[in-house]
Amino acid sequence: MIQNVDQIAIAVDNLEDKIRLYTDLLGAGPDHVEEVESEQVRIAMFRLGETKIELLEGTGAQSPISSFVTKRGPGVHHIAFRVDNIASAIEEYRAKGFVFIEPAPRPGAGGTSVAFVHPKSTGGVLIELVE
Amino acid sequence: MIQNVDQIAIAVDNLEDKIRLYTDLLGAGPDHVEEVESEQVRIAMFRLGETKIELLEGTGAQSPISSFVTKRGPGVHHIAFRVDNIASAIEEYRAKGFVFIEPAPRPGAGGTSVAFVHPKSTGGVLIELVE
Repeated sequence: MIQNVDQIAIAVDNLEDKIRLYTDLLGAGPDHVEEVESEQVRIAMFRLGETKIELLEGTGAQSPISSFVTKRGPGVHHIAFRVDNIASAIEEYRAKGFVFIEPAPRPGAGGTSVAFVHPKSTGGVLIELVE
Repeated sequence: MIQNVDQIAIAVDNLEDKIRLYTDLLGAGPDHVEEVESEQVRIAMFRLGETKIELLEGTGAQSPISSFVTKRGPGVHHIAFRVDNIASAIEEYRAKGFVFIEPAPRPGAGGTSVAFVHPKSTGGVLIELVE
């Protein structure tokens, strides 16, 4: 079952600029900044209560984040919900008719296990489940 | 100062359909459903940890939510952050260069006071401050 909002992920065009902007907005700098080469993104993670605000910049033309920004402009890319058991969550949501983008969960940042629900089955919102 | 994510507001095309869908997703129905005639919206509010998930359906062609859905399709419309004092937050953010859509805070749902920061000054995200 979903427990809380784990993160709000925002696609940006210039990570350094937007780190400054969100540091001004949230009152504190990011917990960490890293490049995830396999995903072609650089990320900055801010903590805000029980939720994280994640800024994502694509690092190449093939990056899904770059193509999102090119197509729709910068903005909210996805919302992540925390679940206690991702395998049983996927099974439960599939039974309810939700469609997952990949057949099985895959490793996420910081030892997590993640799976994305297709926006077509959630009313236009890309939703990530995080265990 | 911003304390936490107060809500994630999602623009939808058919509120009844999406209430069923988010009840399946979140495991419980909405806390309340109401029509706000002055804003030309119907809303359904779900509680999830310290955050609320708000579904918004426009109730007329003049509704900003209807035009958002027509232009961009359904999806995340804005993110609300909770602040303890909205007047001082507006003053502080204006001094930092953030631009507000309206000159002063206005009444929001449930006795709150709200103000919207223009997406042009937040990297493409419509941000609401809620006291």
